[in-house]
Amino acid sequence: MINGKFKGKDILSLDQFTPNDFKILFPLTKKMKNIGFNARPSKLLDGNIVTLIFYEPSSRTFGSFSAAVKQLGGQTVEIQNPQVFSSVAKGECLSDTIRVFEAYCDAIVIRHYETGSAKKAADYASSVPVINAGDGTGEHPTQALLDLYTIHEKFDRLDNLVGVVGGDILNGRTVHSLIRGLCRFKKNTLFLLSPKQLRLPRADFLYFRDKGINLIEIQSEEEIPKIADFWYWTRVQKERFKNLKDYKTVKNRFIVTKKLLEDYGNKEMILMHPLPRIGEIEQEVDSDPRAVYLKSQIRNGMYVRMALLALILGKV
Amino acid sequence: MINGKFKGKDILSLDQFTPNDFKILFPLTKKMKNIGFNARPSKLLDGNIVTLIFYEPSSRTFGSFSAAVKQLGGQTVEIQNPQVFSSVAKGECLSDTIRVFEAYCDAIVIRHYETGSAKKAADYASSVPVINAGDGTGEHPTQALLDLYTIHEKFDRLDNLVGVVGGDILNGRTVHSLIRGLCRFKKNTLFLLSPKQLRLPRADFLYFRDKGINLIEIQSEEEIPKIADFWYWTRVQKERFKNLKDYKTVKNRFIVTKKLLEDYGNKEMILMHPLPRIGEIEQEVDSDPRAVYLKSQIRNGMYVRMALLALILGKV
Amino acid sequence: MINGKFKGKDILSLDQFTPNDFKILFPLTKKMKNIGFNARPSKLLDGNIVTLIFYEPSSRTFGSFSAAVKQLGGQTVEIQNPQVFSSVAKGECLSDTIRVFEAYCDAIVIRHYETGSAKKAADYASSVPVINAGDGTGEHPTQALLDLYTIHEKFDRLDNLVGVVGGDILNGRTVHSLIRGLCRFKKNTLFLLSPKQLRLPRADFLYFRDKGINLIEIQSEEEIPKIADFWYWTRVQKERFKNLKDYKTVKNRFIVTKKLLEDYGNKEMILMHPLPRIGEIEQEVDSDPRAVYLKSQIRNGMYVRMALLALILGKV
Repeated sequence: MINGKFKGKDILSLDQFTPNDFKILFPLTKKMKNIGFNARPSKLLDGNIVTLIFYEPSSRTFGSFSAAVKQLGGQTVEIQNPQVFSSVAKGECLSDTIRVFEAYCDAIVIRHYETGSAKKAADYASSVPVINAGDGTGEHPTQALLDLYTIHEKFDRLDNLVGVVGGDILNGRTVHSLIRGLCRFKKNTLFLLSPKQLRLPRADFLYFRDKGINLIEIQSEEEIPKIADFWYWTRVQKERFKNLKDYKTVKNRFIVTKKLLEDYGNKEMILMHPLPRIGEIEQEVDSDPRAVYLKSQIRNGMYVRMALLALILGKV
Repeated sequence: MINGKFKGKDILSLDQFTPNDFKILFPLTKKMKNIGFNARPSKLLDGNIVTLIFYEPSSRTFGSFSAAVKQLGGQTVEIQNPQVFSSVAKGECLSDTIRVFEAYCDAIVIRHYETGSAKKAADYASSVPVINAGDGTGEHPTQALLDLYTIHEKFDRLDNLVGVVGGDILNGRTVHSLIRGLCRFKKNTLFLLSPKQLRLPRADFLYFRDKGINLIEIQSEEEIPKIADFWYWTRVQKERFKNLKDYKTVKNRFIVTKKLLEDYGNKEMILMHPLPRIGEIEQEVDSDPRAVYLKSQIRNGMYVRMALLALILGKV
Repeated sequence: MINGKFKGKDILSLDQFTPNDFKILFPLTKKMKNIGFNARPSKLLDGNIVTLIFYEPSSRTFGSFSAAVKQLGGQTVEIQNPQVFSSVAKGECLSDTIRVFEAYCDAIVIRHYETGSAKKAADYASSVPVINAGDGTGEHPTQALLDLYTIHEKFDRLDNLVGVVGGDILNGRTVHSLIRGLCRFKKNTLFLLSPKQLRLPRADFLYFRDKGINLIEIQSEEEIPKIADFWYWTRVQKERFKNLKDYKTVKNRFIVTKKLLEDYGNKEMILMHPLPRIGEIEQEVDSDPRAVYLKSQIRNGMYVRMALLALILGKV
């Protein structure tokens, strides 16, 4: 069974996934979507316990994983902010904490504020697989997978695509993951639209282009190509600015409005956003059928997590 | 199936419920009581996920809803204090948060510190029903329903009743709901006993009286009518006082003691309290069989919530 | 059925357990170990709800109980830090809080910062059993039981044992419980190795010795007897020191290293620690097969809790 290769595996980085892996993951995600809508109660994870250990709060990712486990009939042990809890607060190191919690469960989902912590946790956990739910400025592979799945769901491919990435391309972890993911597939083109203070770092730009993706920096909305398959908009991250005035200068530079979508979008495209959204897409756009950020993009996050859990627990 | 009218409905206000609705809800609550005591495991909500999103902590209401879901074999996604969590802390608006969480579940229970938030949440949630678990000084319909159920359970009617309401009738949300609920039925009389600083606002007094309930303000315990069917006592809410001295003046003005119950109560009455109780009913009264506040009144809260969940999820 | 004596019983203190009780509890714990590894999904607690109410955070104990319930197919209602939640913050007394939560569930697990609170909670709860998950400097019976089980699992007896206790023997609640537990059985000898500021209080020393255990205080590692069956090491508890300098003087006085284990340990012994560990056992020791603190000792905590839950809920 080809799926068997996932059993017991940690999910730490998007880079683990080969194009062939997507051929396993994406059809399974589609099946999970069906379970979510029509085929509950599922007993796929009946008797399984997944520990969610979140050193950093993230209500959406936490809720998505919690629901993913329960949609499949599993149970969670939920630990939030253990660093203010006694053991960790008393000075316990991450390795001990992880080895304690792996004793209680079949898989661990970890969110941490320090880059590299998920990898460390996976190294420490000797008996159960670990899923990275975001580690500092590092990776957040399930977010990247849900973004790619959402594009694939619409266009049935991950190559030969034209996309527009708008907003903060300097700091946005999700944007970097998306670009890295699309690098794996052929003939993809991305138009990068951001204030000049928030451009993709030069080194990354060159690195990604070397990998074969076509990256084109643009300065204004007028340069958005009408043929783009998707727009991927992001929030300008206030918390990254030392100077609030600098933030205010750029935060609302590029806003998606009904008019913008009408002028520069096409009928078949989709409009994505990793959320949270703080004004960079107008609420008037939400009801547009092309706007998937509060609809399938969110749901796909839960479905892709259901698929991954089923795979690493060896249940499919 | 008459119950079908509840399927998918939001539960936002006591005012939604017609006397006929009580004829559905109350017998079902009684059935739930039976499940709670004798007929578990129930699989009525097997495969269902209910999100509890509490912007304001309330251990009792939270625990009651959490248990209600699980008594029926369902699962919860539990989010507490999302406003200090990243997405909301980053400035996400309530509508986005609700649309994210509705993607994960079959129903949302929301507690919020701002009046009107539950209604807003229900408007935003397009695919799942929303239950108001208390919104600021607004409504807390399941508390009102459990109070009415507790009276109905004892007397098998909600009309032709005489009650005494004691304590803070100015600020008590639960008291206002109780009066509003009893207005719907005929020939009810309430004696209102409170310090004069904490009387029912005049406008409310007149409004309720216009609706047909007989309201009689009394000044001292001696005026409590021996024939009252129930006493509903409430806490003087310290947090509403700007001046601590004012609070201290009135907080212990009316205290239920064994003696008071003996002198002014009758054998068939019940003594209720919405809790928490901070001294306004002496602990010596707890063991009195007429004292239901720590017994059936609490349990009925869980049962009425079980009934509502089963109804809005279309499982009965 | 002899197990029946546990049904509905509170678990408050190690002193409740007679040697005969261990003959019930330990074989059942072994069965639970089997369920944990091979025999899930278990439906032993299907339809049961256990409330975990933690007034003091303790991620490990919390996670262990949460997992124990779910390993057996039960559900939890989880309330953390109710003292900052509204009802308790508003001044509600413990008795009311407990009586509210017992209405929602089949058993209560309580952790509290005040000694004696678990006993109080058990007195207040009239319809469900209560398990003490640690109350201040008082008891933490499930920790003591897992320690005894871990020794019993290895040596198949709790008498005729020689142990070494290292570290803080003044403040360590778990150490006191272990000694008290071993007092119940015959011909046990414990070597006590601690800085002189952290010795077992004289009164306790004499009390335990009167009970029949052989206690020998030693001053340095060289006095550790090669024949010891187990070493039980503990953390020097920083939070107990008023003066940080005093803490620094003693904290690293006795550290278990590979070399120490080689020089003074034997092949059949086990090395235990109640965790968290802050340097008093070197990480290099973790991979030693005799080091059980991050392995069976942790898992046994969950299994002994599963066994206790099954017993008090009358499911075995």
